[in-house]
Amino acid sequence: MPRVSVSIGDVERAAARIAGYARRTPVLEAAPGLVLKLESTQHAGSFKARGGFNRVLAAREAGGLPEAGVIAASGGNHGLAVAYVARALGVRAEIFVPTVSSPVKVAGLRALGAEVTQTGAIYAEAYEASAKRAAETGALEIHAYDQPEVVAGQGTVALELLEQTGGVDTVLVAVGGGGLVAGITAALGGRARVVAVEPELIPTLNRALAAGGPVRVGVGGVGADALGASRIGRIAYDVASAAGVESVLVPDGAIVEARRELWRSCRVAAEHAGAAALAALRCGAYVPSPGERVAVVVCGGNTDPATLA
Amino acid sequence: MPRVSVSIGDVERAAARIAGYARRTPVLEAAPGLVLKLESTQHAGSFKARGGFNRVLAAREAGGLPEAGVIAASGGNHGLAVAYVARALGVRAEIFVPTVSSPVKVAGLRALGAEVTQTGAIYAEAYEASAKRAAETGALEIHAYDQPEVVAGQGTVALELLEQTGGVDTVLVAVGGGGLVAGITAALGGRARVVAVEPELIPTLNRALAAGGPVRVGVGGVGADALGASRIGRIAYDVASAAGVESVLVPDGAIVEARRELWRSCRVAAEHAGAAALAALRCGAYVPSPGERVAVVVCGGNTDPATLA
Repeated sequence: MPRVSVSIGDVERAAARIAGYARRTPVLEAAPGLVLKLESTQHAGSFKARGGFNRVLAAREAGGLPEAGVIAASGGNHGLAVAYVARALGVRAEIFVPTVSSPVKVAGLRALGAEVTQTGAIYAEAYEASAKRAAETGALEIHAYDQPEVVAGQGTVALELLEQTGGVDTVLVAVGGGGLVAGITAALGGRARVVAVEPELIPTLNRALAAGGPVRVGVGGVGADALGASRIGRIAYDVASAAGVESVLVPDGAIVEARRELWRSCRVAAEHAGAAALAALRCGAYVPSPGERVAVVVCGGNTDPATLA
Repeated sequence: MPRVSVSIGDVERAAARIAGYARRTPVLEAAPGLVLKLESTQHAGSFKARGGFNRVLAAREAGGLPEAGVIAASGGNHGLAVAYVARALGVRAEIFVPTVSSPVKVAGLRALGAEVTQTGAIYAEAYEASAKRAAETGALEIHAYDQPEVVAGQGTVALELLEQTGGVDTVLVAVGGGGLVAGITAALGGRARVVAVEPELIPTLNRALAAGGPVRVGVGGVGADALGASRIGRIAYDVASAAGVESVLVPDGAIVEARRELWRSCRVAAEHAGAAALAALRCGAYVPSPGERVAVVVCGGNTDPATLA
């Protein structure tokens, strides 16, 4: 399979395209040398709206936005973001979710105006059904991570971060399917070190780098709802391996503690996945040098607030 | 009584003094033309740490920081901030709270290393006891709002806001004792309109402006825990009345709804007082002109997160 690459230029074009649609999220210097990029305050509660806007707006620019609208498979952040993006742009959205999805999540998608189809016992079956449906209707598929426009959109996080901070030495970012880490790596183009952080219980990128290509891994633990891809995306693997992204693993206990610290010390509401990158600092999976300027992407805040304290 | 004024220079000196101690809190453009200043992410969960740091650091500069440390009366945000400031600067803190204060708040103060004395049925009695104790020990009193160094420290919020936004037309800010609105008004020096927002049930500034001076008002409703001063501070009255600050009132229902909206739309955790300023936009108590650039200070996030959604 040919390597897929996403360039700085792709990310810069994405940034111009989604300006005024996606939020420019704030940064918080939580401690000297430690900046949090609060992507939890993005529309629909995670960075995913960036890739969604870029995918749809790029299709519209190219005259290729179908009557049938957009379609995606996800009972989580990606589904919420696609539904949000579709509503904001006035296009139809169909979201496929597995039958196990909670009624709360389904209601949240419907509240954003999406048509929701519950089908399949697991995510992969819902995804297959959505692909079949897209082939029938001609709707624009928005993948959760493995499309160049989606990756380029997520990368706009890093362009903002550079502008807002004047540059950092290192960016720590959580990995599920890898859209965010790939976009950030492409956007930085070597201007900062990228450290990919995964729960020990979902090591998609870590195992792929060891195996020399994407492999299937187990999925479990506190990060499963948002980092639950069972295989790293092809684009993410290609981009991360070519750039020499550093991969570290963190135990669930460190993620839980990092999430509590974000609330206690900064009143930042993060989902577990959103705290995974900070956990790498807290448990010593990544140890900055003295004086190193570190940015941590708090990638999502779709969480039950009753569990924050 | 002579008018007390706080100048832009006082606020600029405060900003230089507290840099590296208080956080530079982020701004979030929640919607076109609407910026939130997220003071909820400040150390100890509210803007109060700014005034506390400025009061103590100014005393230290002047060689006047006593052995006995600092003393304050507050079972709320001010007490937490004073305890935080004292710990950060390595000085002793005594906090007086009324006997009705919740065990959770008292435990929070003790966790920050403060000595807590529970005395008096109401706040005013705890305050009297703290003033008596200060006279005995020589500890530095840190008032919740009515000291020039405290007001100047709170005003640093507005200097940051100007830098971060390049300027706005209007700043909406909640009022309790008035330290924050006074500091912001002084810092802006006419560079933006200031709108003082109070719950209908605690109209300290509103009634004072009508009466031509501070008067006692009833205290009630959802904002009482953080905006519960029963009389506007002398400095706040003098600064606000001299500058022609606009005063508006909002019903509790609008505060509750604004707080939910901050969570739903931005994953921002605000206490009721922290949402009061936004409520003025939502209920029409303040109606911006087309194109007007408005900043809303989200002044605190010390809230039970279980009640956010």
